[in-house]
Amino acid sequence: MPSVSFLQPGERLDDLQINDYHIIQNPEKFCFGMDAVLLSAFVKCKAGSRILDMGTGTGIIPILLAARTQAGRLDALEIQEDSADMARRSVLLNHLEQKIQIHTGDIKSASSLFPLSSFDIITSNPPYMNDQHGLKNPALPKAIARHEILCTLEDLVRESSVLLRPGGHFFMVHRPFRLVEIFSTLTKYRLEPKRMRLVQPYEGRNPNMILVEAVRGGNPQLTVEAPLIIYQAPGRYSEEIQQIYSQRKKEVD
Amino acid sequence: MPSVSFLQPGERLDDLQINDYHIIQNPEKFCFGMDAVLLSAFVKCKAGSRILDMGTGTGIIPILLAARTQAGRLDALEIQEDSADMARRSVLLNHLEQKIQIHTGDIKSASSLFPLSSFDIITSNPPYMNDQHGLKNPALPKAIARHEILCTLEDLVRESSVLLRPGGHFFMVHRPFRLVEIFSTLTKYRLEPKRMRLVQPYEGRNPNMILVEAVRGGNPQLTVEAPLIIYQAPGRYSEEIQQIYSQRKKEVD
Repeated sequence: MPSVSFLQPGERLDDLQINDYHIIQNPEKFCFGMDAVLLSAFVKCKAGSRILDMGTGTGIIPILLAARTQAGRLDALEIQEDSADMARRSVLLNHLEQKIQIHTGDIKSASSLFPLSSFDIITSNPPYMNDQHGLKNPALPKAIARHEILCTLEDLVRESSVLLRPGGHFFMVHRPFRLVEIFSTLTKYRLEPKRMRLVQPYEGRNPNMILVEAVRGGNPQLTVEAPLIIYQAPGRYSEEIQQIYSQRKKEVD
Repeated sequence: MPSVSFLQPGERLDDLQINDYHIIQNPEKFCFGMDAVLLSAFVKCKAGSRILDMGTGTGIIPILLAARTQAGRLDALEIQEDSADMARRSVLLNHLEQKIQIHTGDIKSASSLFPLSSFDIITSNPPYMNDQHGLKNPALPKAIARHEILCTLEDLVRESSVLLRPGGHFFMVHRPFRLVEIFSTLTKYRLEPKRMRLVQPYEGRNPNMILVEAVRGGNPQLTVEAPLIIYQAPGRYSEEIQQIYSQRKKEVD
C-alpha cells in the first residue's frame, strides 16, 4: 500500500484489483466508470504495441492496459491539468513511469504533439453528450468529461486518424444513440469500423454503451459481436463481467 | 383451403398460419425465410398507411402486413416475372386483390413507376450479398434474390427516399456485416436511421440479421433495441419468436 502523501485534499485512492495497482481520484471532479474498464478489456493488443489514450482523465485506461496487456510504451493526453496531475501521481505510485507518460494538452491539436502515424493503437473514452443544453457550469470537470465542451467526436477521430499508423487500431466506448454519427465520422477519416459490441445492463434491455474498433485504411466489413451483458440479476454481475474484473494479465493475441 | 388449380408445376402452397392466408412458392426458385417474417413484425404501421414493398419476391411481406396491420393499400414491386406472377396468384387466393397490387418492374427505376412522396412506409428484404464472386449462374432466381445482381443497396435506398413522403418510414432487414454501409447509404439519401435491432440465433451468439427503421428527413438519434433471440434451445424458439409466429391482428400503434 503506497503512502497517502501522494494525495491532495478531496482525493482518494482506489484499489484497481489488478497487479496491486491503485488510482487517485477526486469524487468532486470525476471518477472513472465501468466504461473505461470495458474499453480496456475490449482492446486487442500485441506485445510491444505503442498506445495513445486520448482524453485520459485520471489515467485509468493506460494503467489498466499496462496491467492487462503486454503493450509497449503508453502515452496519454489530458487537457485538464488537475486530472493530468492526478494521473501522473498514479503512474508514479504504481511504478509505471518507465511505461506511461501523461501529457497535458488538447485533443484538437494532438497531431501537433506527437509524431504522425506513430501509434499502433489509440483508445478513447470521450465525452458522450453533444447536447450542452441545460448545463449549469460547462467549466466544471465533470461537465468537460461528459459533454463535448472542449472537443467533439470529429476532433477526436480526425486527430486519431493521422496519429495512427496505417493499419493501426482505434478503440472507443460511446453511446448507441450516436452510432450513425460514429460510423460516418470514422469512415470520413478513413478509420473503418471492423468490430462492434453493444453493452446491455441486463439481458433483454436496450444497450446503453457501445464498444467500437476501427482500423486505419481497413476494408469495409463489420463484425458485430454478441452483446456484453452487465448484470445477470440485480446486484449480481454476469460471468463475463466477473471475469473482466478478476482478470490478471490478459492473453496476448 | 383454396383450389390447387392456382398452382403451376413445381409450386407448392404454404399455410402462413395467420388469417388463413397461404402463399405460393417454388422451392426450386426461392422460398421466403424468417427474415421476411421478422421484418413484417418489426414494421410499425398506423391504420390506413400506404405501403410499398421493394423486391417483394412472391409477395410474402405485403401478405403478412395485410394480416398483421391495419395498413391501407399495399403496393409491391418485383422484377422477376415468375415471382410476380406467383405473388399475384397468392393475392387472389387470399382475396386480397382490393388491398395488394403486385407490379412487375425494376427497383432501379421505381421512382418512375409510382408517384413521388406518396408512401407512408416502404419495406424491403433486399439481396444481402455484394460479392458475386464464385456465382455459377447469376441469372438464377435464387442468385438474384440473394446477390446484388440486378439492384444494389444504393439503388434501393435512392429510389425509396424519393417515393416516401417526408417523415415516411423505411424498414429493412439486412446483414450486420454491412451495417456501416447501410447507415452511410441511408443518410446519403436523407433517410435517417432511428431504430435498429440485431437478431441473434441464440443468446451469446453473434447476430446474423439486422432490422433497421429510418425516417425520411428525420433528426439524428438512434434507438438501439435489445436483440431479438431466435432460439432459446436447439429446436426451441424463444418466447418472442413463438409470439411472432402465433400473432394474429397486431395492435395498432
